[in-house]
Amino acid sequence: MSSTFGTLFRTTTFGESHGKAVGAIVDGCPANLPLTEADIQPQLNRRRPGQSALTTPRDEADQVIILSGTENGVTLGTPIGLMVNNRDQRPGDYGDMAAVPRPSHADYTYLMKYGVKASSGGGRASARETIGRVAAGAIAEKWLKTRFGEISIVAYVSSVGKISAPEIAFETLTRERVDENLVRCPDAETARRMIAAIEKARDEKDSLGGTITCICRGLPAGLGEPVFDKLEARLAQAMLSIPAVKGFEIGSGFSGTLMRGSQHNDAFIQKSGRLGTKTNYSGGVQGGISNGEPVVFRIAIKPVATIGLAQETVSLDGSPVTLEAKGRHDPCVLPRAIPIVESMASLVLADAALCQEYRL
Amino acid sequence: MSSTFGTLFRTTTFGESHGKAVGAIVDGCPANLPLTEADIQPQLNRRRPGQSALTTPRDEADQVIILSGTENGVTLGTPIGLMVNNRDQRPGDYGDMAAVPRPSHADYTYLMKYGVKASSGGGRASARETIGRVAAGAIAEKWLKTRFGEISIVAYVSSVGKISAPEIAFETLTRERVDENLVRCPDAETARRMIAAIEKARDEKDSLGGTITCICRGLPAGLGEPVFDKLEARLAQAMLSIPAVKGFEIGSGFSGTLMRGSQHNDAFIQKSGRLGTKTNYSGGVQGGISNGEPVVFRIAIKPVATIGLAQETVSLDGSPVTLEAKGRHDPCVLPRAIPIVESMASLVLADAALCQEYRL
Amino acid sequence: MSSTFGTLFRTTTFGESHGKAVGAIVDGCPANLPLTEADIQPQLNRRRPGQSALTTPRDEADQVIILSGTENGVTLGTPIGLMVNNRDQRPGDYGDMAAVPRPSHADYTYLMKYGVKASSGGGRASARETIGRVAAGAIAEKWLKTRFGEISIVAYVSSVGKISAPEIAFETLTRERVDENLVRCPDAETARRMIAAIEKARDEKDSLGGTITCICRGLPAGLGEPVFDKLEARLAQAMLSIPAVKGFEIGSGFSGTLMRGSQHNDAFIQKSGRLGTKTNYSGGVQGGISNGEPVVFRIAIKPVATIGLAQETVSLDGSPVTLEAKGRHDPCVLPRAIPIVESMASLVLADAALCQEYRL
Amino acid sequence: MSSTFGTLFRTTTFGESHGKAVGAIVDGCPANLPLTEADIQPQLNRRRPGQSALTTPRDEADQVIILSGTENGVTLGTPIGLMVNNRDQRPGDYGDMAAVPRPSHADYTYLMKYGVKASSGGGRASARETIGRVAAGAIAEKWLKTRFGEISIVAYVSSVGKISAPEIAFETLTRERVDENLVRCPDAETARRMIAAIEKARDEKDSLGGTITCICRGLPAGLGEPVFDKLEARLAQAMLSIPAVKGFEIGSGFSGTLMRGSQHNDAFIQKSGRLGTKTNYSGGVQGGISNGEPVVFRIAIKPVATIGLAQETVSLDGSPVTLEAKGRHDPCVLPRAIPIVESMASLVLADAALCQEYRL
Repeated sequence: MSSTFGTLFRTTTFGESHGKAVGAIVDGCPANLPLTEADIQPQLNRRRPGQSALTTPRDEADQVIILSGTENGVTLGTPIGLMVNNRDQRPGDYGDMAAVPRPSHADYTYLMKYGVKASSGGGRASARETIGRVAAGAIAEKWLKTRFGEISIVAYVSSVGKISAPEIAFETLTRERVDENLVRCPDAETARRMIAAIEKARDEKDSLGGTITCICRGLPAGLGEPVFDKLEARLAQAMLSIPAVKGFEIGSGFSGTLMRGSQHNDAFIQKSGRLGTKTNYSGGVQGGISNGEPVVFRIAIKPVATIGLAQETVSLDGSPVTLEAKGRHDPCVLPRAIPIVESMASLVLADAALCQEYRL
Repeated sequence: MSSTFGTLFRTTTFGESHGKAVGAIVDGCPANLPLTEADIQPQLNRRRPGQSALTTPRDEADQVIILSGTENGVTLGTPIGLMVNNRDQRPGDYGDMAAVPRPSHADYTYLMKYGVKASSGGGRASARETIGRVAAGAIAEKWLKTRFGEISIVAYVSSVGKISAPEIAFETLTRERVDENLVRCPDAETARRMIAAIEKARDEKDSLGGTITCICRGLPAGLGEPVFDKLEARLAQAMLSIPAVKGFEIGSGFSGTLMRGSQHNDAFIQKSGRLGTKTNYSGGVQGGISNGEPVVFRIAIKPVATIGLAQETVSLDGSPVTLEAKGRHDPCVLPRAIPIVESMASLVLADAALCQEYRL
Repeated sequence: MSSTFGTLFRTTTFGESHGKAVGAIVDGCPANLPLTEADIQPQLNRRRPGQSALTTPRDEADQVIILSGTENGVTLGTPIGLMVNNRDQRPGDYGDMAAVPRPSHADYTYLMKYGVKASSGGGRASARETIGRVAAGAIAEKWLKTRFGEISIVAYVSSVGKISAPEIAFETLTRERVDENLVRCPDAETARRMIAAIEKARDEKDSLGGTITCICRGLPAGLGEPVFDKLEARLAQAMLSIPAVKGFEIGSGFSGTLMRGSQHNDAFIQKSGRLGTKTNYSGGVQGGISNGEPVVFRIAIKPVATIGLAQETVSLDGSPVTLEAKGRHDPCVLPRAIPIVESMASLVLADAALCQEYRL
Repeated sequence: MSSTFGTLFRTTTFGESHGKAVGAIVDGCPANLPLTEADIQPQLNRRRPGQSALTTPRDEADQVIILSGTENGVTLGTPIGLMVNNRDQRPGDYGDMAAVPRPSHADYTYLMKYGVKASSGGGRASARETIGRVAAGAIAEKWLKTRFGEISIVAYVSSVGKISAPEIAFETLTRERVDENLVRCPDAETARRMIAAIEKARDEKDSLGGTITCICRGLPAGLGEPVFDKLEARLAQAMLSIPAVKGFEIGSGFSGTLMRGSQHNDAFIQKSGRLGTKTNYSGGVQGGISNGEPVVFRIAIKPVATIGLAQETVSLDGSPVTLEAKGRHDPCVLPRAIPIVESMASLVLADAALCQEYRL
């Protein structure tokens, strides 16, 4: 429903860059979950711009405020209101946009859809909208960990432009390890090359895209609903709902199409206390339902649309225009997208778990 | 909601292989749309097994019956009940499955989720469930064409295993051209090689996967909702909800991550009567909203899990078992998946169009 | 969502009088519930017209067919397709209606809404639409009884026109007792007077309305969601969704407005193993959530709109017309509405129970 | 979905008495609607406690803040974040409640549902939750008036305890006239008697209930969906979702059950430019769809549960307790409920209108 996500664990977000605040309402979070702002702030900090020379220097504190739904440090079962104030609310920063829609931005499509020229262009397409999701996702993750114990949901940058990380052994993957370098690729040598590539793109007033891999471990079998709410279908929707994401694949994904069935089938084996699979080309799901193996997916993020290089385009009335973004811009958003990916995954998994809960 | 899809154009499907019937209820289809079974049957025929030596020989007539929602050949605006009888309702065909879950099938996950051993394994994970979707999608497509005139939604097989088709000029793409060969690849030479590869896999009791490309032309700008119901997010959910689909990409997708922003941005140009873009790396959407360019996406389908080759696996109690599927099986489902992809795309687009309708 | 009801226990109905069939899809019913047609047919039989000289003599067998979702007599957790064939599918029976909308029927409003003149007038406003609900409600009730043991959901006719039944001691209320007479009022003397009044109205080609009281016992405390999904709010929606219902009250309802707080407050007392209340003016809910006392509500049903008496009205073009319904018509629908009320109550309660299930 | 209401015009509320704020997100409001806080504040002021000696003296400014969704005084089509700060956030005010659930309050049922003892008892059952609805309703009403011109949605107090107003000619009904006296009954003489009764109840530390009538004029025909989303079904849900409401009736309601069909049927007559009805026993709806006549409904509100008189009840452990509410309490909430009723009606009507919009 546009700004609402989930069946039982429901998140509704609000806000654009130039209003007073952004945030979310989380409805359906179980009662008696210990929760304060301190549980939410760390992921918001990881999402925040200005963490390094690699990303945009605009400093925004992004302190979350819980408006409702908790008392004495635990949730009440009622809607949790979450708010982060916008510091910078000047409409008009993007003055030209009224007449010249930025290529590969949402200025034009928002105008076509709503018939109103917002000074901020596609306001809800702004990365700032994702603050509400990250705050909500932190709550979902807290509940998952409280409920299932050993759950781990970790994303990392697996490629930047043409530089790809080698396969990461997922057993050793932690957020701490991911955060060891600025680009959030847990292979140090690859990270160095990625950083160099991003700096080069930045110096050339250009931008880079890449891929993010996310691994979710410790989930029970049985999550996900058949047909339209398959676990992978909801994950795909969640990921493609993140700005700039252009692709999603689970398990073997596109490369699995090169294999034969006899290679691709995941044979069952006996694991400690449960049935597992020898390989995991399925990515932890079969028929839309989790099988207890790690849920592994990968997403494609396009190169940032805002670049300093001159671009030949036309204004709304069709007149040729040369467009150059001023100031410094983030040449690669992938490192900051990591907590957004983890949060959206958490929202999907918490909702699937609550829908399955009474059967567990 | 599991078996229901859509906000205003809502499809709810029912049925598994071994019940009396499969079908769907389409709720929210506008009134006064000319509609009879003849509008629906062609896509069902394209989906039907047994169309060629390439696919499973089981012959099912799959004649659709409209149970409600029309009168005198037009829709009433009320729910359209759609039913296709199952001919073959013998439970027990898959006898072993109770004890031995088939690798990369949904037998095991359905058992984990529901705690019941259906004779048909993951009954709703069966390809037969898609009949209801195809019937509903045919109605959605009919409405789209009646409402917007020149809309064209055409999918084709773009790769089988390692054999890929060259890029197809989308202006020449029609369902008739796609159907010119058994494998539904509109490049004749590639099609010949694909057919040979499928026949080889079949003779070797193995199976193949591949990719399908879908191109939707003639859509107005403005379709899709910001945030969670972005057009690409709903398309991704729809596609990943199809059995055996493991990946989705829109526009440049994963390959776009190899480009720089200066290459990837779609500059605006004046087109006849509207603003268009010079390139279409965005795949027809920006910020989740259609921009009037063709919506182009691609999906990955894994190699069929049912193979005649012996597989080493374990039974539910952990005992080693060698599994061999008996009889003839479909070595490559991609040709038959074409109408399913088109139907799910139609459901997404009709719903997005109705949600935008009052603004058009 | 128009034809769909419920969050976790979801019923979608289809069908009008003159199509091939009516029915429903029940999605979300838990797996492993013993279920065959024999569990559903009794309530359909109670709803069926032609049970007595009091009601319309048109005989329809209304045999339900389960199309999917069960195997070997138990539910699979997948959608349960339910169908009842229409015997009489002659469009055109209501010939005049195209030009003359029947007073207090839905002919005119359907035409205004959909812009299509269905031969059956407001087809979905027909009592026949409720067949799908009754079938679905029977499944909901079966699940509630299987899950909570002693649940009892019984409705009865509490007034017909100006004839009201005395208060019925709810401890003695059973469906068997309700069915002891044709009018379904468990007070024999009142029933006799009601029947006489209905026969008089019938002979005078007129019709009567009345009230139905429904009592739900054995529910756990905690059902219902705060705010918009309060248990009484969902019950009110469910009841006002039944054709001809014009009012709903829970507990003391409208008569409670004549009391003072000191009289109306339900003091708590200790009951066996739980806290209960001394009185039950609240009708079993507080703040939208069940408290463990019987849920008691009452609905108002208007006198049947179809009457044999001549009515002065106008046609669609404004010309004066005298309308007289031909043939025999049901002068009082209340007895047949009993299973519909019970079914809608069951749908509300099963959904509320599933939404609360993981907390129980 | 608990805290969310509506299909296309969706309101999600948050907040309880003792958190930092209460408010709502309105998602789906059309773009380009002129909107500032000044459009919302008047109804919040009418809802505010402390307007007179009749109501609770606690003064809360209740100034609404628009957090997002507007720019330069018009809506953007994106979610509108609405917030009202709570002044008084002391948890613990209701100390005893942890042990002694207040009769006919939601303390006990919230505890049963959530298993957590919030200091404020049933926090979301508090009247303060309705602030978000009133703010959202003001936006819905503004849109309805902008879209349809002459719409009027006016509620008034039609009875307090046993004192009933005579029928009010709806043509003369305005909010200004309703607000002419403290009790919001537009019949001056009745209002005087109501006020005297309320003062008497207050002095006797007791409370009164009553009924509210709401009349919606100027609606187009065609609003409302058949079956579960009938206009009257959604209105009933909306009204029963307001704290303390125990009954709903539309048109003739319960008194209509005393009439015969020949009296009750609303004959069609030609009105200026459209078909109308001579009488309006239907209350402006037929078959769940508006017919262009005024939509008229009435609700029952129970006497306030919080009273100063001593009440004999038991604590959670079953021990007898005498409970006396301290301080001054509102002896009759009906005057303050007027804007809440109007707001919920506006939310229902705006949503129904948007769902029908593309057909208008």
